[in-house]
Amino acid sequence: MSVISLAGSLADISPPVLHTRDERGVHRLVLNRPATFNALSEEMLAALQTALDAIALDESARIVVLSAQGKAFCAGHNLKEMRAQPGLAYYQKLFAQCTRMMLSIQNLPVPVIARVQGLATAAGCQLVAQSDLAVAASQVSFGVNGIDVGLFCATPSVPLVRNMPAKQAMEMLLTGEFITADEARARGLVNRVVPLEALDAEVEKLVQAILSKPHEAVAMGKALFYKQRETGVEAAYQLAGQIMACNMMHPVAQEGVQAFIDKRKPQWPVPTP
Amino acid sequence: MSVISLAGSLADISPPVLHTRDERGVHRLVLNRPATFNALSEEMLAALQTALDAIALDESARIVVLSAQGKAFCAGHNLKEMRAQPGLAYYQKLFAQCTRMMLSIQNLPVPVIARVQGLATAAGCQLVAQSDLAVAASQVSFGVNGIDVGLFCATPSVPLVRNMPAKQAMEMLLTGEFITADEARARGLVNRVVPLEALDAEVEKLVQAILSKPHEAVAMGKALFYKQRETGVEAAYQLAGQIMACNMMHPVAQEGVQAFIDKRKPQWPVPTP
Amino acid sequence: MSVISLAGSLADISPPVLHTRDERGVHRLVLNRPATFNALSEEMLAALQTALDAIALDESARIVVLSAQGKAFCAGHNLKEMRAQPGLAYYQKLFAQCTRMMLSIQNLPVPVIARVQGLATAAGCQLVAQSDLAVAASQVSFGVNGIDVGLFCATPSVPLVRNMPAKQAMEMLLTGEFITADEARARGLVNRVVPLEALDAEVEKLVQAILSKPHEAVAMGKALFYKQRETGVEAAYQLAGQIMACNMMHPVAQEGVQAFIDKRKPQWPVPTP
Repeated sequence: MSVISLAGSLADISPPVLHTRDERGVHRLVLNRPATFNALSEEMLAALQTALDAIALDESARIVVLSAQGKAFCAGHNLKEMRAQPGLAYYQKLFAQCTRMMLSIQNLPVPVIARVQGLATAAGCQLVAQSDLAVAASQVSFGVNGIDVGLFCATPSVPLVRNMPAKQAMEMLLTGEFITADEARARGLVNRVVPLEALDAEVEKLVQAILSKPHEAVAMGKALFYKQRETGVEAAYQLAGQIMACNMMHPVAQEGVQAFIDKRKPQWPVPTP
Repeated sequence: MSVISLAGSLADISPPVLHTRDERGVHRLVLNRPATFNALSEEMLAALQTALDAIALDESARIVVLSAQGKAFCAGHNLKEMRAQPGLAYYQKLFAQCTRMMLSIQNLPVPVIARVQGLATAAGCQLVAQSDLAVAASQVSFGVNGIDVGLFCATPSVPLVRNMPAKQAMEMLLTGEFITADEARARGLVNRVVPLEALDAEVEKLVQAILSKPHEAVAMGKALFYKQRETGVEAAYQLAGQIMACNMMHPVAQEGVQAFIDKRKPQWPVPTP
Repeated sequence: MSVISLAGSLADISPPVLHTRDERGVHRLVLNRPATFNALSEEMLAALQTALDAIALDESARIVVLSAQGKAFCAGHNLKEMRAQPGLAYYQKLFAQCTRMMLSIQNLPVPVIARVQGLATAAGCQLVAQSDLAVAASQVSFGVNGIDVGLFCATPSVPLVRNMPAKQAMEMLLTGEFITADEARARGLVNRVVPLEALDAEVEKLVQAILSKPHEAVAMGKALFYKQRETGVEAAYQLAGQIMACNMMHPVAQEGVQAFIDKRKPQWPVPTP
């Protein structure tokens, strides 16, 4: 029995998503189907949804790090599973399930950082694009290559074109060609690129930076960011002004501003486990 | 008689757009008024519209390569013609004609690649921006310099700001200054830049890559891409999910996915001439 | 008495914004509270509004250069002042006042160039993002770091995400981290970066380039640019076509186009002082 097939067998009984939470409120979701390149099977989508729903209910959650076991980050939908159930209603349900999960990432009140250690293709690339931030290992490739099997990456194109110039997105979608991590950073798809061995340290820098801010302000800001982006500039400013006034009324901002005036560090409550 | 004036004389009787189609369904449109830098005269716009309408009706069309004869790709509108007919109704009709042609590029079910061998200015730069993909020769310059004659490039600004960061677009529009091919690539206006002698080979790579995919998936995807981009993210996902389900039901995707599972090349029908 | 406190004392009686106008119609607004890093206090916002309103009424205005005294360009809102008046109604009014000023920049019929000689943070960075064009000195840093005091930069996020890829904007907003001038240029936040000693010359190049164009075309174009960007592509083209037809009917375009045909320089009226 090879290591690969061993992993495959083990996968059936291990959870599809490993979900841990540390005392700081850092939720770690680890895609745990390396033998199938962490494909977004129904089982995987359901497990991610369960985890994201639980995080949404955890008031002490502060940040989510989305990572993966094995050589691939995520290879998109599970084509074998999809091929086995060739019905329109099934596919509609499947993509609705996937979309619900993707939008749950955006709707979470805490930032989601994709930690991309390996190949991200199709809906796996979508997962990176849909995350708020992304850090990639330097050897990683990104592609939206559903077109190679005759299936245009329609749903991945939604966050892709909102995170990359249009012609660059179109080229990837039409040709199925892959881009390197450095190209992904240049285009805006990922924030940072580091050697694989430095990946955890780089993600931790972002985690630390965000944990040091009051989560109430982060939550208000994240929601506002995506909402205002979809409106005209006047409506966007209206929304943003309301949020800033509310944020400024909050004790965390009053303390933060006072600390700034007093030239001291703000005394914000440390997240309780 | 110089070569230039010979070309000028011949232009009057030669078609403004050379339109060929190969057995693979590759339509080639060649702007054929080098003596007037392929300006978008009424004649040229009408010829492009005729060609695009014909391609839209050709069910075996697979891709369009838009290129040009001579030193310039396209110098924008024909100012001499415009100056000769100074009436609001005329100008409204002219820009409506041009807009209809530009939107026909977006509305075609097959990808349009601009092959930019020379200068692209004003509505010529718009033509590049409006194409789905663009490959430029390395010595080419791009500008939206109507402002130099007192005519702000309003219609070119529509695809420009959808293919380039806002301040970079604004600078080009306000100053009329040109950018190099490399700058155009860095900003997102073109996909690839190669030496002039490698231009055909580079375009052919994109053509080959796209021809190897099933055109039904390409058509669904191209239409979805532009439609979803204009809506909020939830509506975009809704649209995209429907398209993916329909695409997945299509025989090309069923075959493509099955081939992937079987680890063989998909057996898609070769386009008939 | 140190130089700093001298400046601080003088600030109280000197105007918060120095406003000059040269014979070419170039308005220069200089933020003049170096001791408070040109923070956008109520006094500063009111002075900027007064200046922008005056420019809007000046038919011979051609361009605005927005610059600043001292080491900082603008450090955002005046936190001391905000902390002193902790009431929702006050904050709502303050952000409405700030938004009105920011939108006045966009609504002005003349281009606004930010001349960024020093640090631009929070609403100071917003001021740069909201300007039509920006030139920065190479040592300048940019940040939207309100989150460091518990106040998410909601209103700055409005022009930021319209001038920079989404994930790059999100990272700055969530972490409060600063980017260099070169990074700001690569992301699209500023147009040009030069050494501090070359800053005035570089701004003057843009001023000259824009002054050499007819302001009527610039005014139509600037308004159209921001309007069309907020609509779908078909409505955008409709708007743009109308503007181009109107612009073409204008004597400046008729003269500009005729001059182009005659191979001479256009005879446009020189702005009267």
